[in-house]
Amino acid sequence: MPARGSGLLDRVISPADVRALDARSLPALAAEVRERLVDVVTRTGGHLGPNLGVVEVTIALHRAFDSPREPIVWDTGHQAYVHKMLTGRAADLESLRVAGGLSGYPSRRESEHDIVENSHASTSLSYADGLAKAHELTGCRRWVVAVIGDGAMTGGMAWEALNNIGGSGRNVLVVLNDNGRSYEPTVGALARHLAALREGSARSNLFETLGLRYIGPVDGHDITALERSLRAVRRRPGPTVLHVVTRKGAGYDAAEQDEADCLHTVSPAPPPALTAAVRPRGTRWTDAFATELVAIGEDRADVVAVTAAMRRPTGLLPFGTRFPHRTFDVGIAEQHAVTSAAGLATGGLHPVVAIYSTFLNRAFDQVLMDVALHRLPVTFVLDRAGITGPDGASHHGIWDVSMLGLVPGIRVAAPRDALRLRDLLREAVAEDGGPSVVRFPKGEAPAPVGAICRFGPVDVLRRRAGDGDVLLVSTGPLAAVALDAADRLEATGVAVTVVDPRWVHPLAPELVTMAAEHQLVVTLEDNAVPAGPGSALRDRLQQMSCSTKVLTVGHEARFIGVGEREDLLRERGIDVAHVVRLVQSSCWPGLRSDAVRLRALQA
Amino acid sequence: MPARGSGLLDRVISPADVRALDARSLPALAAEVRERLVDVVTRTGGHLGPNLGVVEVTIALHRAFDSPREPIVWDTGHQAYVHKMLTGRAADLESLRVAGGLSGYPSRRESEHDIVENSHASTSLSYADGLAKAHELTGCRRWVVAVIGDGAMTGGMAWEALNNIGGSGRNVLVVLNDNGRSYEPTVGALARHLAALREGSARSNLFETLGLRYIGPVDGHDITALERSLRAVRRRPGPTVLHVVTRKGAGYDAAEQDEADCLHTVSPAPPPALTAAVRPRGTRWTDAFATELVAIGEDRADVVAVTAAMRRPTGLLPFGTRFPHRTFDVGIAEQHAVTSAAGLATGGLHPVVAIYSTFLNRAFDQVLMDVALHRLPVTFVLDRAGITGPDGASHHGIWDVSMLGLVPGIRVAAPRDALRLRDLLREAVAEDGGPSVVRFPKGEAPAPVGAICRFGPVDVLRRRAGDGDVLLVSTGPLAAVALDAADRLEATGVAVTVVDPRWVHPLAPELVTMAAEHQLVVTLEDNAVPAGPGSALRDRLQQMSCSTKVLTVGHEARFIGVGEREDLLRERGIDVAHVVRLVQSSCWPGLRSDAVRLRALQA
Repeated sequence: MPARGSGLLDRVISPADVRALDARSLPALAAEVRERLVDVVTRTGGHLGPNLGVVEVTIALHRAFDSPREPIVWDTGHQAYVHKMLTGRAADLESLRVAGGLSGYPSRRESEHDIVENSHASTSLSYADGLAKAHELTGCRRWVVAVIGDGAMTGGMAWEALNNIGGSGRNVLVVLNDNGRSYEPTVGALARHLAALREGSARSNLFETLGLRYIGPVDGHDITALERSLRAVRRRPGPTVLHVVTRKGAGYDAAEQDEADCLHTVSPAPPPALTAAVRPRGTRWTDAFATELVAIGEDRADVVAVTAAMRRPTGLLPFGTRFPHRTFDVGIAEQHAVTSAAGLATGGLHPVVAIYSTFLNRAFDQVLMDVALHRLPVTFVLDRAGITGPDGASHHGIWDVSMLGLVPGIRVAAPRDALRLRDLLREAVAEDGGPSVVRFPKGEAPAPVGAICRFGPVDVLRRRAGDGDVLLVSTGPLAAVALDAADRLEATGVAVTVVDPRWVHPLAPELVTMAAEHQLVVTLEDNAVPAGPGSALRDRLQQMSCSTKVLTVGHEARFIGVGEREDLLRERGIDVAHVVRLVQSSCWPGLRSDAVRLRALQA
Repeated sequence: MPARGSGLLDRVISPADVRALDARSLPALAAEVRERLVDVVTRTGGHLGPNLGVVEVTIALHRAFDSPREPIVWDTGHQAYVHKMLTGRAADLESLRVAGGLSGYPSRRESEHDIVENSHASTSLSYADGLAKAHELTGCRRWVVAVIGDGAMTGGMAWEALNNIGGSGRNVLVVLNDNGRSYEPTVGALARHLAALREGSARSNLFETLGLRYIGPVDGHDITALERSLRAVRRRPGPTVLHVVTRKGAGYDAAEQDEADCLHTVSPAPPPALTAAVRPRGTRWTDAFATELVAIGEDRADVVAVTAAMRRPTGLLPFGTRFPHRTFDVGIAEQHAVTSAAGLATGGLHPVVAIYSTFLNRAFDQVLMDVALHRLPVTFVLDRAGITGPDGASHHGIWDVSMLGLVPGIRVAAPRDALRLRDLLREAVAEDGGPSVVRFPKGEAPAPVGAICRFGPVDVLRRRAGDGDVLLVSTGPLAAVALDAADRLEATGVAVTVVDPRWVHPLAPELVTMAAEHQLVVTLEDNAVPAGPGSALRDRLQQMSCSTKVLTVGHEARFIGVGEREDLLRERGIDVAHVVRLVQSSCWPGLRSDAVRLRALQA
């Protein structure tokens, strides 16, 4: 990619180069950074708005602090592109968020300047507290910097950390990047207090009350003012908050004027060959959920919606527009989302908590204790379940099925297509004796797959009666994989029945019965396999002294990197070819399979 | 039990009776309540100090508010004994915390006045927020009261809830029960601010800053002042904090003067037949950990300790006394405990996070993302793992093995006795490539059980070579059960090998090899069985097309009530008789077992 502007950015290969620049050239550097961000990220896709907002803050931080000796921890991490560009990775930006390329978050593999590669919100102050304590014990009182948004400050971890940092005397600088938003405007008492601080109308200061020095508000796009403030921070030891006011998407009209979320993320540009007219336009899972929830809301006045600062991404915008008083954005606060939903349910309502699968991990205890122990009717709708893609290890929603499999009395549904999503959402919201879950992946739902018949809750998608050698148990949208594999196996003489349990937890007795009638069962799961449906089926059959072999095609409990969803599924064997091979290799020397062998010889 | 005093308490069978009393007789009622508490709880055992502290607050609340129409939510719930006594359960107090008796926490089965039966801290404000939203939507703006301690306010959930409650206009009363302590004095910036509010030296008010009205501080033992304040709350709608200052253990010298924790909990009095001299005096697991950690601390300057407000109960007091600067109490803040430990580890130290098993559920995401994804050497020491006893469903530590079984790269040890605890703790702290865990139950460690030999990490406790029909895999302190069962089975002609894997996760290849050499494997686990070692072994063997049958004796993923540890284990089949029966019934008609049958016929 050709460098533009005056070429300052191309000469920056480490923070020392930023420090060496004359202060007068910094606006030009900022302009180059911004130009490059827009140019590249609109093509690669990624977090554009947040990075445009921190261009000047990042430049100023790398001038005032000596990273990595003085570590800079980026909360949530999706605003670290500028930091990457200033720490030797500007030329690599084109490879953003693809397998083998730059991570969309800090990454310790990429640079010694990256400390924390997490991308769940609100952790930076806790890391900084720990780092500062470590510095103190090892005899050096170096500064530690945490850059945290006003949205992430609504998360409880930030409070827990402030309680430890405030008054500690340690050299922790909290750069409060106040753009007034998470995706959308930040909610609640903190947001109002920050607004008052910005406007100079606050009668008290939260941070001073908690024992931190407060400096600000500072214009987060004025590098000179930022540098001056940061040098003031350094002159006096002890925990300090620097309140910088930024604009998400700053300097790029399309972002600043984007009503939804200031172009929080942009999708990769489509390949040139595909015009908008011919791009595939299936139903997005999120949209199918969004539409059906409004319909449910029309039918039932007791249904309310809860989001942790993600109204649009989780599909709650239509419901929220139609029923504003029945929609609650609680901030980036998954724990409170779950337990306030428990309170709503205790008060006689049926809350639908819409949340990305990976973020529900933040509230395991609340689901277990506050909802399930109380047998409260709360429905969790988990978008981005299973492999997601370009956000990598911390965004794949592969833990939910295993984690929820431990929760007594919960029911977990995995629809195979948009029609089934609507059915299962209706069934989930009809539950009144305990919690229910509907999980589905990112992206577009596949074409609907009809059922031949239903056995209990189990949909039979394909049946070979009498000589059913193999049962494929397909969960969620893996039905097409299972059916294709069945076709291929049939061509080699193996008779395959395919079912979709619809509810992947708890195990349906009907599924157990069907499984016991087969010699080999293979479950297909887009989730970590421990405690998943295959594991549960295997456990149950062994308890019954049934010799059916149960194999599971799914994810091991490992961290999975960046990649396209289809590629990552295939790498883990969640594809037709692998399922066919697995069945063939498992049937051949083993098990019953006289009939199988015979047919194979005949084939 | 004979009633004492003037008999006021015996005439109170509902809050209406409290409201009907003349205000002048309230001190007498308080005295009776306190006398009854001391009399009963010192015999039954239970949470004494917290309840002595809220006698007057509870009386005043039940006079000013109309429970259950105006719900009162007790945070953590261990301070609800007085509430129970005023809502018709005074006569049942003798049955506290035994199977079939009164729960040590609120219980919806017991009374319509009990809303939340959780006993993990910091949830009450979230419940109250949800209840208040539900009231608003259903057209009645009734008050909701949450009673929360200053300790529980250090938990992040409380912050998330305050952010939603502040400025909401809803009728939520937060009764901040400020006794300056969790178990020990509350730490951090909030505690200092509350002290300033108590002393009148605060220059700002946290709660007002967050959009709540603040009333206080009020003497929490002056019923007249409390009633006056509560009536002032009612006169003006909107979210309000009433800051009441109480003394934990108030009115009972032995509690007020108890340095450790104001008699936070007292143990049941020993049966009369057992004098102190003859009571069993084995080594408590907690003490074995405490002693060894100090020894490790002497050897290694990089080892530091972290507690979430439970320095004494988790055994960190000796380490904290010896190494005060290397010991961090972070408040009731499990999330921050874990992620600040990640920060400490990033800074080159090896943190040991000592926490009750059940409370680690609060930080699943932090263990997964902030520690494991970063492959940081943090050791978690989980006391109260497995069945605990009188605290019931929310305190049994049965979820940890399954939950941690999902965490990539973590290692989980379960020592079988105090000697092994010391060994495994040393091994855990020697790990430098990722997180490690040591889990052990409440109470006294059993007599040491030696190993015949070690195979990889697996201790062989008893070996029957050549004709090993059955392999018993004993985890943690269940070795004695396994060995006794083996003896009994041997008497019927079944040859049994017993091993202790020591590390229950990940699965040792050596254990897989041994298991594959047997026809029947039974794992003994004091944890929920999904994703536990038995399940992992079963999955692995089926992958290998090995026909070994693996059965698991452990807990289903269900909530388990109050009871004695031994009773609860036995009810779930974790005892010698059940293991023997299970092996016999599994061997007989099934599997290989010609040899077994032959020997059985010969026997």
